[in-house]
Amino acid sequence: MEKARIIFQPSGRRGEVKKGITIIEASRELGVDIETLCGEKKVCGKCKVHIEEGFFEKFGIRSTRENVSPWQEEEEKFINEAEKEKGNRLGCCARIQGDLLIFVPEESRAGKQVVSKAARDIHIEHNPAVKLYYIEVNPPSFEEPTGDFERICGELYKQYGLQNLTIDFFTLRELPNTLRKGHWKITVSVWMDKEIIRIRSGKVEDHFGIAIDIGTTTVAGYLCNLRTMEVIDTQSLMNPQCKYGEDVMSRITYHMMNPDGLKNMSSDIVEGLNTIIQEAVKSTHPPKKRVKKKDEGEGTEQEWIEVPEEGKGYLRLEVEDIEDITIVCNTAMHHILLQLDPEHVGLAPFPPVIHHGLDIKSRDLGLKVNKGTYVHVLPNEAGFVGADNVGVLIAEEPYKSDEIQLIIDIGTNGELVLGNKDKLISSSCATGPALEGAQLTYGMRAAPGAIERIKIDLDTHDVDYKVIGRDAWKSYSKPEEMKTKGICGSGILDLFAELYRAGVVLKSGRFNPEHRSKRYQKSGANNQPEFVIAWAEETSIGKDIVITQKDIRQIQLAKGALYCGCKLMMRRMDVKTLDKVKIAGAFGTHVDREKALVMGLFPDCEIEKIISVGNAAGDGARAALLNREKREEANWVSRNVEYIELTVEKDFQEEFAKAMQIPHMKDQFPHLKGIVSDEILNQ
Amino acid sequence: MEKARIIFQPSGRRGEVKKGITIIEASRELGVDIETLCGEKKVCGKCKVHIEEGFFEKFGIRSTRENVSPWQEEEEKFINEAEKEKGNRLGCCARIQGDLLIFVPEESRAGKQVVSKAARDIHIEHNPAVKLYYIEVNPPSFEEPTGDFERICGELYKQYGLQNLTIDFFTLRELPNTLRKGHWKITVSVWMDKEIIRIRSGKVEDHFGIAIDIGTTTVAGYLCNLRTMEVIDTQSLMNPQCKYGEDVMSRITYHMMNPDGLKNMSSDIVEGLNTIIQEAVKSTHPPKKRVKKKDEGEGTEQEWIEVPEEGKGYLRLEVEDIEDITIVCNTAMHHILLQLDPEHVGLAPFPPVIHHGLDIKSRDLGLKVNKGTYVHVLPNEAGFVGADNVGVLIAEEPYKSDEIQLIIDIGTNGELVLGNKDKLISSSCATGPALEGAQLTYGMRAAPGAIERIKIDLDTHDVDYKVIGRDAWKSYSKPEEMKTKGICGSGILDLFAELYRAGVVLKSGRFNPEHRSKRYQKSGANNQPEFVIAWAEETSIGKDIVITQKDIRQIQLAKGALYCGCKLMMRRMDVKTLDKVKIAGAFGTHVDREKALVMGLFPDCEIEKIISVGNAAGDGARAALLNREKREEANWVSRNVEYIELTVEKDFQEEFAKAMQIPHMKDQFPHLKGIVSDEILNQ
Repeated sequence: MEKARIIFQPSGRRGEVKKGITIIEASRELGVDIETLCGEKKVCGKCKVHIEEGFFEKFGIRSTRENVSPWQEEEEKFINEAEKEKGNRLGCCARIQGDLLIFVPEESRAGKQVVSKAARDIHIEHNPAVKLYYIEVNPPSFEEPTGDFERICGELYKQYGLQNLTIDFFTLRELPNTLRKGHWKITVSVWMDKEIIRIRSGKVEDHFGIAIDIGTTTVAGYLCNLRTMEVIDTQSLMNPQCKYGEDVMSRITYHMMNPDGLKNMSSDIVEGLNTIIQEAVKSTHPPKKRVKKKDEGEGTEQEWIEVPEEGKGYLRLEVEDIEDITIVCNTAMHHILLQLDPEHVGLAPFPPVIHHGLDIKSRDLGLKVNKGTYVHVLPNEAGFVGADNVGVLIAEEPYKSDEIQLIIDIGTNGELVLGNKDKLISSSCATGPALEGAQLTYGMRAAPGAIERIKIDLDTHDVDYKVIGRDAWKSYSKPEEMKTKGICGSGILDLFAELYRAGVVLKSGRFNPEHRSKRYQKSGANNQPEFVIAWAEETSIGKDIVITQKDIRQIQLAKGALYCGCKLMMRRMDVKTLDKVKIAGAFGTHVDREKALVMGLFPDCEIEKIISVGNAAGDGARAALLNREKREEANWVSRNVEYIELTVEKDFQEEFAKAMQIPHMKDQFPHLKGIVSDEILNQ
Repeated sequence: MEKARIIFQPSGRRGEVKKGITIIEASRELGVDIETLCGEKKVCGKCKVHIEEGFFEKFGIRSTRENVSPWQEEEEKFINEAEKEKGNRLGCCARIQGDLLIFVPEESRAGKQVVSKAARDIHIEHNPAVKLYYIEVNPPSFEEPTGDFERICGELYKQYGLQNLTIDFFTLRELPNTLRKGHWKITVSVWMDKEIIRIRSGKVEDHFGIAIDIGTTTVAGYLCNLRTMEVIDTQSLMNPQCKYGEDVMSRITYHMMNPDGLKNMSSDIVEGLNTIIQEAVKSTHPPKKRVKKKDEGEGTEQEWIEVPEEGKGYLRLEVEDIEDITIVCNTAMHHILLQLDPEHVGLAPFPPVIHHGLDIKSRDLGLKVNKGTYVHVLPNEAGFVGADNVGVLIAEEPYKSDEIQLIIDIGTNGELVLGNKDKLISSSCATGPALEGAQLTYGMRAAPGAIERIKIDLDTHDVDYKVIGRDAWKSYSKPEEMKTKGICGSGILDLFAELYRAGVVLKSGRFNPEHRSKRYQKSGANNQPEFVIAWAEETSIGKDIVITQKDIRQIQLAKGALYCGCKLMMRRMDVKTLDKVKIAGAFGTHVDREKALVMGLFPDCEIEKIISVGNAAGDGARAALLNREKREEANWVSRNVEYIELTVEKDFQEEFAKAMQIPHMKDQFPHLKGIVSDEILNQ
């Protein structure tokens, strides 16, 4: 029977399937959820996918549209000519005839990712970069025929002391008619007390901005009221660049291999940001309801139309209402967004094109908001410690603290900051995406069906677990109710710590050869050892979900990189103990502090002093949006944190090898006493 | 025989022609010169014209492409599909079948206009807004992995003391590769010591800018070396907006009548500016010559190809080499260029949208130059005294003088400034285009064939004259050698003064009924009196060239407006005598000072103190290009010249009526004594 190699993006799930089955069937086999409301009857059009074309070196496959069955009539209804040209198909119609790389767009994904990028309630001083000023001016007369611009500047000076104002060229175009429409009463939006970027007729009190956090994998946007500082809406989506590679380096490689690579990736993320902005704005509109269209005369057939529901309290914003934007992201995402050559960021000594924060007109970047709006992109610290880390710093302000803090931001890359008000150093470590669930045999994103919590009985070695989207743990459920699909980041951390605590895995990371349980088995061509977490009957994929020796190595590499990084930084700063460990990012939100300590993710610290600070990068973007002084602070901190390139530190290799152990010598982890048995600790 | 009404633009020549003749034949009849190298054999393609579509209210005609004969095969060779779509035809192929408004593009005009916008040799301090800085930086290392931007900023501070620099977003994109290509040696272009707008590899010494003067009728550009201040090339073309109306008010009306009017007019002038820039840049390339292509093997036919001539000393600039642009123009042209609603500038009390000078990114305006380049548009004084007048002022600097100066800039509109270092007032007067040769029966632009000088014998009343393009006066030529076509501005002034001096025309402007000469005749339906300047045999149009009573009225209105304006301004300033009269613009270059005084164009002044200052507006643009302090000076002067709206002055009507006389009472013109006979003066 002929097989084809299939890769689904952005999940990265891959495998071989029988030729002739539909894309939906293949997705089910490989554990990818695609929306199919109609049950593959070809009538709902929800299972739209995109066939990527080209040779994908990383996977060793050539994907082409010829590798799917011909176009079907049923698809016409849902896929227009332009989309068809681009290679879109319905998953229920298209049958696999060869190797394929299939991209599942956000809207076709059934179990949408649980994005833990909610805005935290942090204290921010109110001092937005854009402020509103209401003025009334006299109309021109023969005695005083001064121009419109000078007329409003005069009043802005008289009433508010604003001087030497300029005006955005496109805003100037709106001025004469807005002024007359408002009967010489207008509200002016001024950026940084320098430039008029918007003019509206009459008195307006509220104005809005959006803070954006571009992660390698996820993009989040926080729509804020610039007056009340309230977060009105949060939007997130997968970084559309995932199709060019999951990590930073593979995107940089894509740029180096393709003349238009940088431009393509930039347009994709810009389009993504526009989507976030549009969706955020749309959230302020009343929902639409279907009503019968009124008869418009004899013989007119009654039709259903959609109208917005009545109701006050809706802001009904439009994209033109976005008057300010701040962006944080890592240095590579920063460079790709702005179309700055990212090649050198990827090559030692990793210099970025620019550190400084940038103010760019939204129109120059292609963002569809008010034409005069500036985008403020926060500064980069170094090639591998970007504006996202600066965002974390201005949100957490370790430079105002006496305590020695270690701040860990684990995304696809690990970024570390250590220090206090006297000195701060930063570094990055190549954790890779293993801690987030990628690259493991059954690893997956934090989406419904993912195992997020695991307990292993120390005596029986039986496994209990909980999946996202189901409240009851396995021990309280029937096996067929679990519908498990894989393990996400927090589950992996639990698993790793529990396997060690139960003695299934040794300090070295190897499976304990003395351990015997029905969950321990060998499989595959090389007869590799693996441990069963969920039996086939508990899953929706019909296969045992296991963790292999290779998976454990992957996790060890990741945690080793992180631990080693922290350790070398402490040595550099001559710091013996940590007063506080702050874990930022989605990872921090889900991590079990105790488990993190057990597996030796970072040096020892009192458990109560390990804190999750949520999406602190996004909080930093929001702080810079609502308080312009935070932008100055960001520029300052980005130039005053000393970046340490760990890989050139003395003993790096040796320290890294040591750090892969689980965890370390017990004397290095006094706070593990009582959590892990002495027997295990003394291995 | 059926007739069609034809208007040729931009010359404005119009009349009725027989249906069925070609456009070239019609152009000859109406005195419009269209290039026909091949003698209408349909093989040179030089006579390309554009058929405008629409109803032209001003002329009362509807012009449509159906009013010309069908497309001919011969046209295919010269007019591509896109041009055809736009309504382009060859004048030798297209036959007239109905009313037409035909636009003759610059390149098809046989006798190109003599544009007197040459740059004068004025003193300008060297302090351009854009300056070059050469630096060498160390490549990044692990010890110093600072970003590219900060690396060059550090060096620019160390060597040149430049601080707080920003960088244009698009320039930043060029930075990493330019820096590496130049082996860390680069030349940086910095705008106003604030923003890096260009980066080039290695050491570069020269950089370039262009100063532009947008007149209602003519646009001129001066390509300058920003280091040596040398004018490298001067380019000019007709303002492409002429097709929307010849004067400012008709273009404002076009905007008010057409939703896309403003956008269309703006795109047209932007395209015009791009043409000027491209042509100016092209002038720095070596000319091309035809050479035989080298044989490339057996059987290859030898072909001719064009290659640039060898030779050093050519700058070979590209549009990307334009690093700064300054623009002067009147307020209406300013608003139309920038797409600022010009409606209010045309309505009392005529407030402009903005006075202040503007710095706009060339890309936002659609100018194709270096992407980081700023366009500096000089400030407006008032609705009818624009940035062009500010240009005149910063070139002439009356605010630094003790003498009371009257500065007159006569374009399609008249702009006046009066005063000295203590006070300056400005005003505008509706001279209309009569003084430039438009609107008169045989008026024409200063192009080959135009009468530019006239003498009338006081006894015989015989007329002697000189035409542009021929050195010999009529009295030294055979009649058929003259090939006269019409009268241009300077000729009209001569004519008017001479008719008065000879007693043919009375002080009131009426033909002297006692005057009898064979040149005095009556014609037309109303038996109107007219004076023959050139007999049909001396012309290329086969008709007597005459001046009619109506023509004289037009000139009187224009000169009356100007004189009355000057007079009222003197009254307002309580000035009795003028120390100096400066005449700016092409008009000033050609005007005979004595004749101007005879006709009473402006109040009395010692003849030696009447000075032509050439295209002072353009000089001002150049001054602002080469010396940034002139921009500050311009902003200051634009706000400190008091604008007087003459039409609301006391006695305006009365003064205007008086001013239409030729000239005024002799006691008001002591300097005319000896130039005009007492008999005439004492009429």
